[in-house]
Amino acid sequence: MALGLSELNCQKFIYLDSSATTYVKKDVWDEMKPYFTEEFGNASSMYALGKRSRIAIENARERVAHAINCKKEEIFFTSGGTESDNLAIKGIAFANRSKGNHIITSLIEHPAIINSCKYLEKQGFDITYLPVDKYGMISIKDLHEAITDKTILISIMFANNEIGTIQPIEEIGKISREKGIYFHTDAVQAIGNIPIDVKKYNIDMLSLSAHKFYGPKGIGAIYINENVNIDSFIHGGNQENGIRSGTENVAGIVGLGKAIELTTNNIIENSKKVEKIRNIFVEKVLNRITDIELNGHPTKRLPGNVSLSFEFIQASQLSLMLDIKGIATSSGSACSCKSNKPSHVLKAIGLSDEKAKTVLRFTFGTEISEKDIDYVLETLEVEVEKIRKNFNKN
Amino acid sequence: MALGLSELNCQKFIYLDSSATTYVKKDVWDEMKPYFTEEFGNASSMYALGKRSRIAIENARERVAHAINCKKEEIFFTSGGTESDNLAIKGIAFANRSKGNHIITSLIEHPAIINSCKYLEKQGFDITYLPVDKYGMISIKDLHEAITDKTILISIMFANNEIGTIQPIEEIGKISREKGIYFHTDAVQAIGNIPIDVKKYNIDMLSLSAHKFYGPKGIGAIYINENVNIDSFIHGGNQENGIRSGTENVAGIVGLGKAIELTTNNIIENSKKVEKIRNIFVEKVLNRITDIELNGHPTKRLPGNVSLSFEFIQASQLSLMLDIKGIATSSGSACSCKSNKPSHVLKAIGLSDEKAKTVLRFTFGTEISEKDIDYVLETLEVEVEKIRKNFNKN
Repeated sequence: MALGLSELNCQKFIYLDSSATTYVKKDVWDEMKPYFTEEFGNASSMYALGKRSRIAIENARERVAHAINCKKEEIFFTSGGTESDNLAIKGIAFANRSKGNHIITSLIEHPAIINSCKYLEKQGFDITYLPVDKYGMISIKDLHEAITDKTILISIMFANNEIGTIQPIEEIGKISREKGIYFHTDAVQAIGNIPIDVKKYNIDMLSLSAHKFYGPKGIGAIYINENVNIDSFIHGGNQENGIRSGTENVAGIVGLGKAIELTTNNIIENSKKVEKIRNIFVEKVLNRITDIELNGHPTKRLPGNVSLSFEFIQASQLSLMLDIKGIATSSGSACSCKSNKPSHVLKAIGLSDEKAKTVLRFTFGTEISEKDIDYVLETLEVEVEKIRKNFNKN
Repeated sequence: MALGLSELNCQKFIYLDSSATTYVKKDVWDEMKPYFTEEFGNASSMYALGKRSRIAIENARERVAHAINCKKEEIFFTSGGTESDNLAIKGIAFANRSKGNHIITSLIEHPAIINSCKYLEKQGFDITYLPVDKYGMISIKDLHEAITDKTILISIMFANNEIGTIQPIEEIGKISREKGIYFHTDAVQAIGNIPIDVKKYNIDMLSLSAHKFYGPKGIGAIYINENVNIDSFIHGGNQENGIRSGTENVAGIVGLGKAIELTTNNIIENSKKVEKIRNIFVEKVLNRITDIELNGHPTKRLPGNVSLSFEFIQASQLSLMLDIKGIATSSGSACSCKSNKPSHVLKAIGLSDEKAKTVLRFTFGTEISEKDIDYVLETLEVEVEKIRKNFNKN
């Protein structure tokens, strides 16, 4: 194991990987805590201890519904974004097979969507993976052309986890509604960063995960419009109105509820703040370091996302060197960095395998300050130069 | 909402529903805590913060493996017992369809097994639901007779959640091994209450859930023998060696690891203590209250389980009256009590629908004392008499 932060007892720690996960905020933590050791009742039990857990869950459900503008009864808790995505894709596929076997998605979806679709291909479903342009944007024309009379589902992510690109969700929703095709969006990266209104955007299903917006890991939710015909995915005791079985994770649900309330209450303010600092960072980094490029859309992107290609540099090496200086970044998404395969997202926007390995992702949370950015820039300049000098020597 | 404990500010609180869920023990809680707010790294990230999460997860995996005597690499974390059961049943079915389409289970399994099997029936699988005798025990003869050359899986629960009956797991394991059929057991109720050795019992797959043994809700695990051919169930970023995708719930995993260590370290001692108090309770209750019967096997049962039929009484009413006196019990399992349907387990052991509704379950945890039992007995006597008097009046 390589040396890292704790081993060096480094005082500085700047976390620039908020798209991978976030810490649990204090207010979230305070609300969750009692549900582990004191308010531990099974929410399906009929005695007072259990009923208090039930009330806590239903309060959380209301908070989620309020955050995305849907009915409380349209929110179902799951174990996270990946499970929500699996439920949406497989649940729609199997429930609507008699109507058609065609699903449209994109080449840059999260693996939870892509691998669920690949699984469905083995079960006889036909999947169209829409390409994206160099900014990571799908084309509405392509979407139109892909629709057939067998299309039962369009699943396009709200915003991309690697390059931050925000898709034309409102237009996709409009088309889906017109054609009578269900529209699912993986909003795991978008929720908490940009305002989302499922009614306005004609979204039928939406996946979200608490640990991306300062809630705990292991808990997520899915919004399913009341008119959607969907099969359940995890079968059992019929909790969550039969959509998702399993004893409810009360503490996790309470944490998700508080986290989504906090994050959406201040969403405009926070997103502006983060975007402003992100823009300063991008401007300065492009000025101070040569041979780098910004990936993703220049404007239609998540406020906290910066994806940079560093020519002549292995991003994994740079990430390690930054880690030693107390800066956490990501070469590839957390899901893919262990596999050492070039990212499917970066390939889809036209990067070669070699170039994809030069890409480092910085994702800023709400706690980021301009002072942090200055330290990151200084450190980045030094480390990039070190690596490039070595590269030139060899 | 009915009046309950908190509303009455009742000082006594005796929790007799440990089979539904347990609180998180202090030592478990202390180990989990840092992983929410400080050690929040994504375990798949390559920087120090992420690597420390990875180390914590692998330590927990070792503890689980040690507890049931398997290899560390044979343990996979899930969101709970229900998901583990779904993975086992569906994962085996779809991976081994070319070998056969027949699965053997029992009539008294948890809904996570039964409803997964019912789902598979719709997909063309053939399921045998073995009957049980009046004690809730399957017959080895029936099992032998049910096996065909198309049988790919036998799934029999270790111990029943409602009546506590412990199945002849070692014999089932032997038969499965001889016939070359995979053997899965839902050990959600057994783990932490009786010692389990998967090698000794020839178990190929085993489901467990942390919140049944003083760990947190929303986290479970499955043991899958390295020789088992199984499909993954939740698709995505290929965490858990490709078996279970989704960002790891680090705090939950750490809690599960500590809880299983604690519970198995003292398992003989604790189970003897609980069994002794349970036996005193059963003896006294049968002496002091007329027209009641013990359900389940007289000796081959979980140490903490008491299932009693109270003639002329609606168990749901009795449970509510006990709740007001600070005693939490369960009429039906937590999974089924809301549906108001008579329990499939009680029907399988031969109870009529009417009789099934007279059954109240008391499940004792390790914290139970003889003094508690005395209070429960006194209260029970009074409340049962009250209800029966009213019944006779009407």
